[in-house]
Amino acid sequence: MNDQKHINLLVFSGEYDKALAALILANGAREMKVSVTMFFAFWGLLLLRDPDKMNQEEKTAYEKMFSTMTPKCAEDLPLSRMNMSGLGKFMLQEMMDENQTPRLRDFLAGARKKNVNFYACQLSMEVMGFKAEELLPEVKVVDVKEFLKDAMDADMQLFI
Amino acid sequence: MNDQKHINLLVFSGEYDKALAALILANGAREMKVSVTMFFAFWGLLLLRDPDKMNQEEKTAYEKMFSTMTPKCAEDLPLSRMNMSGLGKFMLQEMMDENQTPRLRDFLAGARKKNVNFYACQLSMEVMGFKAEELLPEVKVVDVKEFLKDAMDADMQLFI
Amino acid sequence: MNDQKHINLLVFSGEYDKALAALILANGAREMKVSVTMFFAFWGLLLLRDPDKMNQEEKTAYEKMFSTMTPKCAEDLPLSRMNMSGLGKFMLQEMMDENQTPRLRDFLAGARKKNVNFYACQLSMEVMGFKAEELLPEVKVVDVKEFLKDAMDADMQLFI
Repeated sequence: MNDQKHINLLVFSGEYDKALAALILANGAREMKVSVTMFFAFWGLLLLRDPDKMNQEEKTAYEKMFSTMTPKCAEDLPLSRMNMSGLGKFMLQEMMDENQTPRLRDFLAGARKKNVNFYACQLSMEVMGFKAEELLPEVKVVDVKEFLKDAMDADMQLFI
Repeated sequence: MNDQKHINLLVFSGEYDKALAALILANGAREMKVSVTMFFAFWGLLLLRDPDKMNQEEKTAYEKMFSTMTPKCAEDLPLSRMNMSGLGKFMLQEMMDENQTPRLRDFLAGARKKNVNFYACQLSMEVMGFKAEELLPEVKVVDVKEFLKDAMDADMQLFI
Repeated sequence: MNDQKHINLLVFSGEYDKALAALILANGAREMKVSVTMFFAFWGLLLLRDPDKMNQEEKTAYEKMFSTMTPKCAEDLPLSRMNMSGLGKFMLQEMMDENQTPRLRDFLAGARKKNVNFYACQLSMEVMGFKAEELLPEVKVVDVKEFLKDAMDADMQLFI
């Protein structure tokens, strides 16, 4: 037990705005020398997909359909509100550009560079048919108990 | 104050995938001997309905309409995303079956068997017109202050 | 460091029911002498708008469009589910009135009177083009690091 603070973010939602919130918190915390674990479950896994590494082999029919119908990478996620078939998201991205705010992919790259721990939920991966090699390379696949151990010792936990 | 860890989950959402996440966490925590309180508020109350005990008497017109339009039990909840009038949920359930993952009702049964504390939000019940006898028998109706006391002493709190 | 408990609520959602949940928790906690910080980010900022102080000057075209298309104050927010173009929300409000439950605006007024700390996320305000003078007067604009400092020392944090 040392004095370093630690936060744990459970990223359940696969939506652009919520993913942005999670990654802005993760980057900010790392800049304060706070250690950060992000645990991606269910729709949150869509943030971790590497579009160059999609692999449809060994997937069942449903898993293939699911893999094809869902966003291919973080930047493709829809908004949680006012998405309006992408128009709302386009507007948000334009407003972010006007303000010179980095894009979601930049915050994701920042979190990777700053050594955020990326955990993926094992059960969600099994159900959705994602293989570890389809995700970003630093992602560690863990079960719910490993998540709980990390989260219960953190100074802050959020379900996003 | 003892060494036992405690977690508190505020279940606000009445959606199949979020309810699944909450109950998987609750079951996992109990298997680690962590005590668990689940506080169901607003749409979360829909998880606790017993379809055999619906009682429309003493309800106002709005309460009856609400009671009739909303899902009758946990297994009937929609997905938070890609529900597509039930098609997306059907797909998810097929993928869960292929992976031999238990259904939501099984995780709910597991949580009940493992002595998770089930609390229902008193104010939500009054507003929505639910009576305690329409819910699962182990549910205790508490107010927001009882929730806060339990949650502030927990090692982890999530709003799901 | 004293014995006073503190909670931190990150209000991300701009939806009537979730805002209600956040404000009921905030009011309840203050009645228990617990100190409360509410940090409003993204859609959550819509709760803080003062409809009499809208100012379209110095906004870009996108910011004006965004400002016009979004709810003007807390009472105008939609439901997160079953909004049905406002019918579901009307029903919920009728049910709240029948139960003599205060409206969202009353819980917001209560939280202001009870000295809840109102923080607005600086980055969200910049992106969405909101100016401090368009929001309720007690709102303090802070960055993500100030939020994290407050939240990590709290006895409970929720992402709503």
